[in-house]
Amino acid sequence: MKIDVILNNRTEYDFSGKTVVVIDVLRATSTILTALVNGCLEVIPVCGVEEALTLRKTTAKGELILGGERKGKTIPGFDLGNSPLEYTKEKVGGRRVVLCTTNGTQALVQTAGAEEVLIGSFLNITKVASYLKETARDITLFCAGREGRMSLEDLLCAGKIIKKILFMAKNGTVPELTDSGRLAMIAYKHLVNKVKGPVIAIAQTEHGQYLSSIGYNEDLRYCGQVDFLPQLAIYQNERIMLDKPCYRN
Amino acid sequence: MKIDVILNNRTEYDFSGKTVVVIDVLRATSTILTALVNGCLEVIPVCGVEEALTLRKTTAKGELILGGERKGKTIPGFDLGNSPLEYTKEKVGGRRVVLCTTNGTQALVQTAGAEEVLIGSFLNITKVASYLKETARDITLFCAGREGRMSLEDLLCAGKIIKKILFMAKNGTVPELTDSGRLAMIAYKHLVNKVKGPVIAIAQTEHGQYLSSIGYNEDLRYCGQVDFLPQLAIYQNERIMLDKPCYRN
Repeated sequence: MKIDVILNNRTEYDFSGKTVVVIDVLRATSTILTALVNGCLEVIPVCGVEEALTLRKTTAKGELILGGERKGKTIPGFDLGNSPLEYTKEKVGGRRVVLCTTNGTQALVQTAGAEEVLIGSFLNITKVASYLKETARDITLFCAGREGRMSLEDLLCAGKIIKKILFMAKNGTVPELTDSGRLAMIAYKHLVNKVKGPVIAIAQTEHGQYLSSIGYNEDLRYCGQVDFLPQLAIYQNERIMLDKPCYRN
Repeated sequence: MKIDVILNNRTEYDFSGKTVVVIDVLRATSTILTALVNGCLEVIPVCGVEEALTLRKTTAKGELILGGERKGKTIPGFDLGNSPLEYTKEKVGGRRVVLCTTNGTQALVQTAGAEEVLIGSFLNITKVASYLKETARDITLFCAGREGRMSLEDLLCAGKIIKKILFMAKNGTVPELTDSGRLAMIAYKHLVNKVKGPVIAIAQTEHGQYLSSIGYNEDLRYCGQVDFLPQLAIYQNERIMLDKPCYRN
């Protein structure tokens, strides 16, 4: 088993035969997971605003919630932004969400050809790592990054996933790591452990600082919570659903 | 002053007003510097094989040396490959070289708009860092990577440049680092120091292992030599020359 990490979504990759985990800690994958755990039936990731608006036009009124952001802020005409805290049971329970974000949903749509695609975040990190440990396939941790750049918070999450897999595999076959896999491990070890957890490390990243500057401090604290939503979410047939629906009351 | 690191050459960046250092440790920038120190008059980086062949057709016989690689191996019809050890005084002294490599020359050509562009490698790392310390501009360390992926050896070189700049700046204004700048520092500190120098660290990277598998072990040792060629090379008007020509005998 080989573990690779992709640092942004601007290069085309061949995902055939692979298990891919899309990671966009701030905030798409944290938001997707939150929506699903709060009873959202499915999340449909799309790349363009027009695509989202068209999808709503073709469905019955109130059936689809549109969520998404540009430069971190809610898209005009959309119901919700990209803050996980907006995706409450009251707002998304029993409904479907179309999500359109700058980086995370683009990465999801790029995974065509993969054997399976999971949603990764700090919120469900152990669940994801445990699942990956059992797969016999090569693994790609696909960090969405930010407008073609590496985002440190995504790489830190990838590093922690790898660390957990290696720990679980210590008495068996140790997975092989690519250069970027080694880098993610090193980054996690020295940037997260040093500050005693992901919440502070996330707040120190460029995107963390940007979100803080536009008023989303609560999101940083929320998205850094390890194993707060221990669920597996799968992207299949252009939509994301929980592996085993298990809604919070 | 802000220091940023770019991890590969597949995204377009705005370099206006910036000092850019292109880094392709294995092997383009190590090779360029070696050729120039061995008396090559100038190196002209080009992206395509056809472009290189056309340039030769339009010049007098023997005036231009064509060098370059595809998948690490010499391009058919070219005089030299991309091993710095081929660029001896006998072969390139007093002549001009057209260089066409998979990643490094592509990165160089992408720097259009930058205020100035330098050639970075372990071979001239202190010279580059000292120069950068004196500039008042924002700095971009542009790691060429490998076919759109991050290359660890380039990031390690960037990390060491940053470390040197910070050390020199410790009593003055400390430059600001982006996420990728912090990442490069961490990578250098924990992957190079741990193995006591760049030579072993380079040999452990994916591209290092590939070059070793096709017989270029000597190149790995050569390219990991810190400050072996303490010269500044500048890319300007589509060609690279030494800042102050200083040929070895």
